[in-house]
Amino acid sequence: MKNIQVYIQENKDRFIDELMDLLRIPSISADPEYKKDVLRTSEVVKKRLEEAGADYVEICETPGYPIVYAQKMVDSSLPTILVYGHYDVQPADPLELWTSGPFDPVIKKTQLHPDGAIFARGACDDKGQMYMHVKAFELMMKTDSLPCNVKFMIEGEEEVGSNSLDAFVKGNREKLSCDVILISDTGMLANDIPSITTGLRGLSYVEVEVTGPNRDLHSGLYGGAVANPINILTQMIASLQDDKNKITIPGFYDDVEILSLEERAEMAKAPFSLEAYKKTLDLGDIHGEEGYLTMERNSIRPTLDVNGIWGGYSGEGAKTVIASKAYAKISMRLVPGQDPHKITKLFCDHFVSIAPKSVKVKVTPHHGGMPYVSPTDNIAYKAASDAMEVTFGKKPVPVRSGGSIPIVALFEQELNVKSILLGFGLDSDAIHSPNEHYGVFNYLKGIETIPYFYKNFTDLKLDS
Amino acid sequence: MKNIQVYIQENKDRFIDELMDLLRIPSISADPEYKKDVLRTSEVVKKRLEEAGADYVEICETPGYPIVYAQKMVDSSLPTILVYGHYDVQPADPLELWTSGPFDPVIKKTQLHPDGAIFARGACDDKGQMYMHVKAFELMMKTDSLPCNVKFMIEGEEEVGSNSLDAFVKGNREKLSCDVILISDTGMLANDIPSITTGLRGLSYVEVEVTGPNRDLHSGLYGGAVANPINILTQMIASLQDDKNKITIPGFYDDVEILSLEERAEMAKAPFSLEAYKKTLDLGDIHGEEGYLTMERNSIRPTLDVNGIWGGYSGEGAKTVIASKAYAKISMRLVPGQDPHKITKLFCDHFVSIAPKSVKVKVTPHHGGMPYVSPTDNIAYKAASDAMEVTFGKKPVPVRSGGSIPIVALFEQELNVKSILLGFGLDSDAIHSPNEHYGVFNYLKGIETIPYFYKNFTDLKLDS
Repeated sequence: MKNIQVYIQENKDRFIDELMDLLRIPSISADPEYKKDVLRTSEVVKKRLEEAGADYVEICETPGYPIVYAQKMVDSSLPTILVYGHYDVQPADPLELWTSGPFDPVIKKTQLHPDGAIFARGACDDKGQMYMHVKAFELMMKTDSLPCNVKFMIEGEEEVGSNSLDAFVKGNREKLSCDVILISDTGMLANDIPSITTGLRGLSYVEVEVTGPNRDLHSGLYGGAVANPINILTQMIASLQDDKNKITIPGFYDDVEILSLEERAEMAKAPFSLEAYKKTLDLGDIHGEEGYLTMERNSIRPTLDVNGIWGGYSGEGAKTVIASKAYAKISMRLVPGQDPHKITKLFCDHFVSIAPKSVKVKVTPHHGGMPYVSPTDNIAYKAASDAMEVTFGKKPVPVRSGGSIPIVALFEQELNVKSILLGFGLDSDAIHSPNEHYGVFNYLKGIETIPYFYKNFTDLKLDS
Repeated sequence: MKNIQVYIQENKDRFIDELMDLLRIPSISADPEYKKDVLRTSEVVKKRLEEAGADYVEICETPGYPIVYAQKMVDSSLPTILVYGHYDVQPADPLELWTSGPFDPVIKKTQLHPDGAIFARGACDDKGQMYMHVKAFELMMKTDSLPCNVKFMIEGEEEVGSNSLDAFVKGNREKLSCDVILISDTGMLANDIPSITTGLRGLSYVEVEVTGPNRDLHSGLYGGAVANPINILTQMIASLQDDKNKITIPGFYDDVEILSLEERAEMAKAPFSLEAYKKTLDLGDIHGEEGYLTMERNSIRPTLDVNGIWGGYSGEGAKTVIASKAYAKISMRLVPGQDPHKITKLFCDHFVSIAPKSVKVKVTPHHGGMPYVSPTDNIAYKAASDAMEVTFGKKPVPVRSGGSIPIVALFEQELNVKSILLGFGLDSDAIHSPNEHYGVFNYLKGIETIPYFYKNFTDLKLDS
């Protein structure tokens, strides 16, 4: 497999340039204003897959943004790997906190990325990680080393809940049939501590609206006598957690998978410095559910976070108004055992039940997603672990992530196939934040590792 | 005084047109973008006072927006009335709720204003009410019936806390010397229930900022393990009131003037329909401090209202972010006995003290204002009451208002003069809200009533 390093060495500048071109298109799926850009991105991804060597590429229309499907069938008797990724990105705001334009990618060195990192929205999540697969595929095609069949399913709605994917997967079981699903949309512990994600949290996301009086009122003439929807909303949200930071929604913890003390002791062995964590984020103190470690709070325990809140006057100066309405976006990360539909319903029922009669409450569910646990005793995990061990020179650590990729549970349910979460990003890459970036080292290391996975998986599968 | 009605009848269309011209200028003092418009408004007010017959008019520069001063000295042995008003207006947002442009005044009929009302920001608060005084002055000049000296002090920073007025008043005690201050910046109970405001609440206004992590974070990777500043802010705000809707800031109620049961029984006689109140505002229920009536909650009791809250993502769709910062604007209406400086300090100290170590908190005080109680046993009140009795055919009711005009306490302290709050607006006029309006009846009735006040006050003063 010496060809891999040589090919990467000879083509790395082009690999980076092509990714930067892709990052220049603001494919923000959450904001309808960027519709043309999202669509244009799907066209570029299609073109790149064709150029890389796919023998069939299709833009599959959906009620939302299209899914780019591609395949290279070598031999039907060989195993098939299905690569999943997404070409849409998170909104870039708050824009004023970016040190360079979110869609104007530049390479800058950082402490953790001495070889430089590409700064742009989507650099890591997920254009950079998705495009590693396109380039690894090109590499195997050009060096004549593709050992199996490969299919690509690259969607454009991951950041808004993959709304169209469910129907697409259900309607294309045959087309998507495969032996394993390979996804790079997660991270690893550090550039010198490779890891593979073996668990993901699920997600329940709701938007709430509290209405007090039917119009904005003067806070002098009405203050004290009518329900202020902002005050009420703060009280309602505050009541969702108790003084131990446990969530108070009745039934919320009923189905939570409880890890044994042995499992928790095993988890606690992962390298982690609380001081460094606090320092990096400039935290005076950590904060979370009583009785759990930081690494547990953000992985094996469910959460409730307000992702946005707004209402009343937020301009300069002072306005003495009682707003008619107040709003919040609230998400709950779920752990294995919890069902997002059930949790969303529990939230809705509870939130409506705690509203005083003086206000009206509306709860609108956004997308949700199932939690997921990936086994470490199957050939897919072994293929990935061995691949990383070769390219990093170190056996990777299995890690539970706090993030959510809801479609992983969908794939298992509909296609009866497990996914391998082979991510190369770092926690510090600031995905979903200003100044998102992706290490050049990580990008190239991903392109290098993927072909080993293909080879290992094919060998192990044919042997089994 | 028959001339009054005749002059109004002959000139009312022009009175309305001139007010509408004034309302077309968006003199929003809170937003620096409108600086030119605010300044232009001061020029127009100056011009109108000159045209009305002032023998001296001056634009008095301040560190903020200028104060328009005018006077007509008839005879130094006669009493002097000082008219206070303001030419600035509240911001107009949320714009989408206006049924016509906030600075594009139109006359529309409403249930309470069958003769029509002028819809525009500032129509009632305070351009409409301030301009009544200019037109009443013109009327007295043209009909040769001005019985005393008159001074005008029309400021441009009332909606942002009258920041420059304090120094102006202190530096111009001689210029502003007078026997009574006449202000129309309040309301009355109904067009057939005239009333005079005899009490005002004070104000303490702060802006708070809660900082969690030093950058926006992915709510999956960090959720549960770091303090979410929005969650914390909701908890901190919620804790400021208990389950009886009493404010929990230590010392907050210490200086509150407690009314006797007799006084409260007297207040309770004012006409008020709870059902109509709830219906007008579309409230499922009223809401406020336990143990007090609605009319007490919004007048003799202090409050704490969030006037604005913001943080995180508020765009379309779902963004799974933990914001770095969350903000709120919070105001407290104060009652006689409470000092705004003391209350602001109590708030700041308490708010900082309840913050968990996992966040940083910043509290920025905005303007404040003293509460005020006006006596009903002096000649100024009698002059106003008699004037209304003539023009409305009914003795006005003395009423405590929940609003604040902080400068009233300032005038008393610095000029040693009491103010008369002779307002003609209605609570339903939607001041500080979309679709602010001012009844044509109220506007003209104000112009009619003011000259009677001048005459009554002069007669009573000269007799005393």
